[in-house]
Amino acid sequence: MKEEILEKLWEEVRELSLGSATTAVERLHSPPSPLDFLRRFVSPNKPCLISNATLHWPAASLWSSSDAHLLRALSSAAVSLHITPSGAADSLTPHPSDPSSLCFASAHVHSMPFPLALQAIYASDLGAKFVAYAQQQNDCFRSEYSALKDDCEPHIPWATEALGCLPEAVNLWIGNELSQTSFHKDHYENLYAVVSGEKHFLLLPPTDFHRMYIREYPAAHYSYSEETGEFKLEIEDPVRYVPWCSVDPYPTLERREREMSKFPLYFNGPKPFEVTVKAGEILYLPCMWFHHVRQSPDSLGRTIAVNYWYDMQFDIKYAYFNFLQSIPLPSSHDLTLHEVSCGSSTDASICTSGGESDVNAVESKLPAENNDDSEEE
Amino acid sequence: MKEEILEKLWEEVRELSLGSATTAVERLHSPPSPLDFLRRFVSPNKPCLISNATLHWPAASLWSSSDAHLLRALSSAAVSLHITPSGAADSLTPHPSDPSSLCFASAHVHSMPFPLALQAIYASDLGAKFVAYAQQQNDCFRSEYSALKDDCEPHIPWATEALGCLPEAVNLWIGNELSQTSFHKDHYENLYAVVSGEKHFLLLPPTDFHRMYIREYPAAHYSYSEETGEFKLEIEDPVRYVPWCSVDPYPTLERREREMSKFPLYFNGPKPFEVTVKAGEILYLPCMWFHHVRQSPDSLGRTIAVNYWYDMQFDIKYAYFNFLQSIPLPSSHDLTLHEVSCGSSTDASICTSGGESDVNAVESKLPAENNDDSEEE
Repeated sequence: MKEEILEKLWEEVRELSLGSATTAVERLHSPPSPLDFLRRFVSPNKPCLISNATLHWPAASLWSSSDAHLLRALSSAAVSLHITPSGAADSLTPHPSDPSSLCFASAHVHSMPFPLALQAIYASDLGAKFVAYAQQQNDCFRSEYSALKDDCEPHIPWATEALGCLPEAVNLWIGNELSQTSFHKDHYENLYAVVSGEKHFLLLPPTDFHRMYIREYPAAHYSYSEETGEFKLEIEDPVRYVPWCSVDPYPTLERREREMSKFPLYFNGPKPFEVTVKAGEILYLPCMWFHHVRQSPDSLGRTIAVNYWYDMQFDIKYAYFNFLQSIPLPSSHDLTLHEVSCGSSTDASICTSGGESDVNAVESKLPAENNDDSEEE
Repeated sequence: MKEEILEKLWEEVRELSLGSATTAVERLHSPPSPLDFLRRFVSPNKPCLISNATLHWPAASLWSSSDAHLLRALSSAAVSLHITPSGAADSLTPHPSDPSSLCFASAHVHSMPFPLALQAIYASDLGAKFVAYAQQQNDCFRSEYSALKDDCEPHIPWATEALGCLPEAVNLWIGNELSQTSFHKDHYENLYAVVSGEKHFLLLPPTDFHRMYIREYPAAHYSYSEETGEFKLEIEDPVRYVPWCSVDPYPTLERREREMSKFPLYFNGPKPFEVTVKAGEILYLPCMWFHHVRQSPDSLGRTIAVNYWYDMQFDIKYAYFNFLQSIPLPSSHDLTLHEVSCGSSTDASICTSGGESDVNAVESKLPAENNDDSEEE
């Protein structure tokens, strides 16, 4: 397998998805018809950004100007708050017992009354040494936040008609600019509506699989003590390995050079699609696209979004993707990394990992990627 | 590249396309809604057979019970008749100057009044040493056969709405059981309506590319002398190479063993999808699927069909296909064939050919596959 063959694939998908040399996502100024949405975006697995999509939702005004409505509606609701030291949950962080290697760290999750959760979000900053993100990817909008159900549509009508089903899960996200989500992909069609503030996505098509350097990392969890205000990061026992994208698209200045030399296919290849989703807009984020998410707060200091996950079709595109990910990286890149390339298949492939982590090479069944308690958006 | 990786791809597409262990194509008992057609078939690139699709066409009765209507409507129409010695046009046949190698032979094409063409079709048999097939893939239904325009719908309404465009070409086909079409693929979405008689398709998904053993063959043309009743097969001068599928799925008994050893990926791999399209039915033949076509005549001795070619979307599926075809065959199969694997790309790739033909290895630009005057259906 020569690298040029992969490069041609990356380029061709960009030409076909864009029809131009930009890295912008196509914008629609109003919601598409179901047929148009299916034909122009879902079928070709192509993202789009839809303006004027949710301005008719009561949430558009009720949630954005003040917290009064949210605090009233949710005064007695218990919600899940994800707490991390720096806003990076479900992401790679130094291994607690060997900081020269990495582990996959999940947030400390705490259920608390919404008013307290919102307080914690406002109190989040790096000075306070904790970052809180109200979210739970288990259909939380229809469970924990059911008191808000009349504020948003229960589903996106044109998407529901196009996709032929109701959403499998609807999730609410409230955080501030410190919370971000590392590169990953979901096995869902995603309609991502921003209600207040802005979300900034980096998107890469599934054909860029090799550029993500998916490796297995030992799973770890933060636990947070309210008394001491300190975090502890512990590796799961027994050790469980999570396949995850190795690339951080925004490395700090001192890490930048090292990251670029470790992940040349990402840093030297075509730029990701960049898209900012503003209040009132919906991003169609097609299934299997890799995405990285940051956010900017509204004037009150929070970003609020609701996303709708619809079942994807496991069709010929999915089969092609599995084929692509079964093809090893060009060997020069394997040598650079001293790691074994590893597909993040859902079909329980056996996969060997090692190298960067201090564990011995292992063979383990890959876990499913979409855990309900994960931080993926 | 290991053969198992390809085998897994072939299997997975079958599981996803079928959801069962059969090799049958999904049947709909009435035309689908545009949204349903797009979602369930076009987007996943999956064929289907639609019953009760064209029974409302005037052609359903006017064309099938006798030739009277056709002869009256087309009494002065000049139509294109494709004439070959055995019914195999646009197919591989022994090279005229070195019968141990193969060339790509096109029919002798003769324009004549429709009544004479129909006579020639009835006179076709192997005893007569010629087979006539009335067809021309240049939108002939709307040009040569325009007198029949009110007998069929000018387009397939639910397909037009789903695909968002009118057909690029509508073609009429009148032949008998001797005419067949060798394995190939088209860069069109194909709605194939049988009006009288039956068509028998073998279908392979685009992911089976390597099983077709696409090679370059020198282009040749039959010329037919009405006076002597003899055919002459001549190689184009200058030599032009046509990439074509090497596999004949129905080799004669004496050729069978040799063919099976030359093309093991086809003969030992998963069976093609088999589908018979009867009068009144429409086959949705998705773009890029390889297909081989035979036919059975009606009680009068002819098969009549109309096919609608709609523009395909050149999307991520197309990019994946190009990626797949750029991957060489597992080397054991190359050694077996003593030929260089060669993609049938439309983007004028440079490709090396040799081996079976007696010409020296050449480098030539690949021609576009869908010539207007070809025999592909």
